[in-house]
Amino acid sequence: MFIRNAWYVAAWADEVADTPLARRICGEPVVLFRDGSGRAAALLDMCCHRGAPLSIGKVTALGIECGYHGLTFDCSGTCVRIPGQERIPERARVRTFPLVEQDGFLWIWMGDASRADQGAIVRYPWHNDAAHWPHRHTMYHIQGAATLMVDNLMDLTHLGYVHGSTIGGNPMTHVEAKMETERTSNGLKFDRWMLNSLPLPTYVKACGFQGRIDRLQRFEYIAPGTILQLSAADEAGAYANGLPDNSKLQFRLFHGLTPETETSCFYFWSTANGYRTDDPAATEQLFSEIAGAFKEDLTVVEAQQARLTELGEDHLVDIATDAARLHMRRIADRLLADDTLARAAE
Amino acid sequence: MFIRNAWYVAAWADEVADTPLARRICGEPVVLFRDGSGRAAALLDMCCHRGAPLSIGKVTALGIECGYHGLTFDCSGTCVRIPGQERIPERARVRTFPLVEQDGFLWIWMGDASRADQGAIVRYPWHNDAAHWPHRHTMYHIQGAATLMVDNLMDLTHLGYVHGSTIGGNPMTHVEAKMETERTSNGLKFDRWMLNSLPLPTYVKACGFQGRIDRLQRFEYIAPGTILQLSAADEAGAYANGLPDNSKLQFRLFHGLTPETETSCFYFWSTANGYRTDDPAATEQLFSEIAGAFKEDLTVVEAQQARLTELGEDHLVDIATDAARLHMRRIADRLLADDTLARAAE
Amino acid sequence: MFIRNAWYVAAWADEVADTPLARRICGEPVVLFRDGSGRAAALLDMCCHRGAPLSIGKVTALGIECGYHGLTFDCSGTCVRIPGQERIPERARVRTFPLVEQDGFLWIWMGDASRADQGAIVRYPWHNDAAHWPHRHTMYHIQGAATLMVDNLMDLTHLGYVHGSTIGGNPMTHVEAKMETERTSNGLKFDRWMLNSLPLPTYVKACGFQGRIDRLQRFEYIAPGTILQLSAADEAGAYANGLPDNSKLQFRLFHGLTPETETSCFYFWSTANGYRTDDPAATEQLFSEIAGAFKEDLTVVEAQQARLTELGEDHLVDIATDAARLHMRRIADRLLADDTLARAAE
Repeated sequence: MFIRNAWYVAAWADEVADTPLARRICGEPVVLFRDGSGRAAALLDMCCHRGAPLSIGKVTALGIECGYHGLTFDCSGTCVRIPGQERIPERARVRTFPLVEQDGFLWIWMGDASRADQGAIVRYPWHNDAAHWPHRHTMYHIQGAATLMVDNLMDLTHLGYVHGSTIGGNPMTHVEAKMETERTSNGLKFDRWMLNSLPLPTYVKACGFQGRIDRLQRFEYIAPGTILQLSAADEAGAYANGLPDNSKLQFRLFHGLTPETETSCFYFWSTANGYRTDDPAATEQLFSEIAGAFKEDLTVVEAQQARLTELGEDHLVDIATDAARLHMRRIADRLLADDTLARAAE
Repeated sequence: MFIRNAWYVAAWADEVADTPLARRICGEPVVLFRDGSGRAAALLDMCCHRGAPLSIGKVTALGIECGYHGLTFDCSGTCVRIPGQERIPERARVRTFPLVEQDGFLWIWMGDASRADQGAIVRYPWHNDAAHWPHRHTMYHIQGAATLMVDNLMDLTHLGYVHGSTIGGNPMTHVEAKMETERTSNGLKFDRWMLNSLPLPTYVKACGFQGRIDRLQRFEYIAPGTILQLSAADEAGAYANGLPDNSKLQFRLFHGLTPETETSCFYFWSTANGYRTDDPAATEQLFSEIAGAFKEDLTVVEAQQARLTELGEDHLVDIATDAARLHMRRIADRLLADDTLARAAE
Repeated sequence: MFIRNAWYVAAWADEVADTPLARRICGEPVVLFRDGSGRAAALLDMCCHRGAPLSIGKVTALGIECGYHGLTFDCSGTCVRIPGQERIPERARVRTFPLVEQDGFLWIWMGDASRADQGAIVRYPWHNDAAHWPHRHTMYHIQGAATLMVDNLMDLTHLGYVHGSTIGGNPMTHVEAKMETERTSNGLKFDRWMLNSLPLPTYVKACGFQGRIDRLQRFEYIAPGTILQLSAADEAGAYANGLPDNSKLQFRLFHGLTPETETSCFYFWSTANGYRTDDPAATEQLFSEIAGAFKEDLTVVEAQQARLTELGEDHLVDIATDAARLHMRRIADRLLADDTLARAAE
């Protein structure tokens, strides 16, 4: 069961250039490509003639050409060429999915196309501001449900256990973080204040902290699969009156979780540093620290998925630190129910 | 669903020598071996004692000896030795399949043995005429249904798309080939005339063509899995009155498709050159060109199989160049229906 | 269907030290670990919070700490720590399995804990007597049912066929061995006398026999998965009046078969030499000969399993040398029936 009436990151915009890209999204095989004008499109990755994946074909001036017998489809999925015949039958077309290129992403809508509202797509201006927020991005393919990765990001007490030697630091700092949570129309926001805490290795590397620090993690979850994160830190005492306009250390993370199958997903993430912004080494170092840490998440979540697939979730026990995660799940469950109703009404 | 009442190539005759050969055919595990007299036989690859595959045993003077406890079976599947006891119970036998060695093949019959007519096996004399048709053969194991590989050979417009850089050449030469099709009692024949066309790389290598050529591909499909091919080419104009007795370039391909499972098959093929017949390099070169090209088919068909397994064939659209393929499918469907009726009547 | 109300070897005691060990037993994922006091325990390998495998966590002074959010469980499966909250809910616990450390083994009981009688565990004093029976042990992970491996050990006519070049020797020596079988309350014993027989390669290497030998294999099967073996040999004539107190060659094998899944198992085995007991090379040589031979069994049994999984056992034919194996199977079937009844009554 996927929430289909929603925008997901299908790919980084720069993943799709001259050759088609095959990617399974919400269980369906999709091919992403750009036509001659550079416009990106998403089709079902199956030629309507003999079923070959279009992704093994090539892009021509007309559109995407099947690698088997040469049928060609434009961005709307319409067949525009059949070698050996003039007339193109009405039925010769391939399903297309709404696709929007924005802020460095290709966003896809896997549900009812008539409900796809481009204005509802999360904006991320920090990908367009290399002067103040230089960034780097990548994607991890994870053998665990997208939901489990969102869970992961909604309960940050895992940082001390999963990431002790990297971005986590002392477990109790996270367990004892002061949480301020706010519900939104399509998700939730929370601030995690860790004042007067020990600086963790990643932060020391980034900004050379020597004494204790004030630290904030600000998260916004936008259902079903997007999480925006701002992390900031400064000398202890700096946050006595809340977050100032500028911090010695500040960086942003984008997290986009896209279901591949019920038990696997794509994790699109980027790092953008708002400190040492004219030093490429800072961008590189932040990305590389986070890359290592997220591999640690991947290991845990894949192991967790295997157990849940086998034994189910029915007997699990919620604990105090699950509060944000449980709120997130209620929102996702409501979207899923809406989605199911909408499809039943089709 | 397999067509069982039919002869399939089980193996090249030279694949079965001193040691047993395990091969799954029409979903059933088969062991092929030769007894002391050199006679080849095919048994179910499972000892009737404890179920070990006979193929991990060895061949003795008496027959095939199980590698676990030494029971031995002759070519008829009869148990002829049980270590530790004199009496051999009636039930101690293994299913056998009709097997015929002819023209370099081992042909197997997976259906009702009483209907197996050796006279109905396709003959291929060109494997026995090294002076005029030196040949080389091999087998590809393909993760795609045998039917999809027959499809592949019935619609040669794929040559320009799949094999553009090898045996294909210009796509439109194939799309515009003049087709002459003839139905036969158990299949169909078709000629593809490509007169005054550009010589493709493989042909230039073989015979050094410099200008345009007349080209013919003559195919005979014999249901369910055999295709005989003659390819010929000469200087443009040479075929003005049809195919002459001899062409500057002429070669034969044997294609035998044998189902392994519903979604995988064995592709037995050979090349025989009727030009530069005293030059081993010509035989080698032709084989090697074709070997590369057929790997290209394998890639496409395996990708196609994955899509069809997932999404089915129901919504596919036939096009003009599918004519021969559709005729082939009707014949195969009729054989399958006959087969199903025959089994129901057993 | 597993016999659950039984003791199985879960691990060699020395496999479980500072880090948790994950092992699937009778289809269930189990984690083995030692607490601060060195006591070994077995829990279901799934945290009751979010389902992560406990085996990816670590052992602390309190017990086993989940590697995701830090919940900690003691040897009884009770949660003793939840980061971020004081109160530990009653439901926060993980299933535990009775585990006994004895004679170098960790024995586990996967069934009804109230029926687990430690006194019923097979004793194996030869693991505790390095002076007279120096030993070495290991474990093979086999893609075949535990039952098939017990079968293997109950019909030793396979030695000549599977192990001809190692521990087997001449097939007919085994086929013609004089069998003396005795039923026991929970299994069976049998002696295989091979008097005046040719010495096999392994025995010659061990003790330098030059002429014919008297040879005995004494097996005890204790349901469901344990087999104790004594092998002895001496100059021909030495066993005219039965087995003497001492033989020139004598060694013991322990065989413990533990189901992993319905079609895979763990084979725990050890060799202990009662000859050249002060020569470490003798211990090493015996172990290494057996290790090679048992790999041969593994190959056969995995191939057999694949066939039985596909085609079933219904049409197999028993032969004379199956007598001990069939008796073993009747005992195992009775235990399985008891087990099923006991569970139905729960």
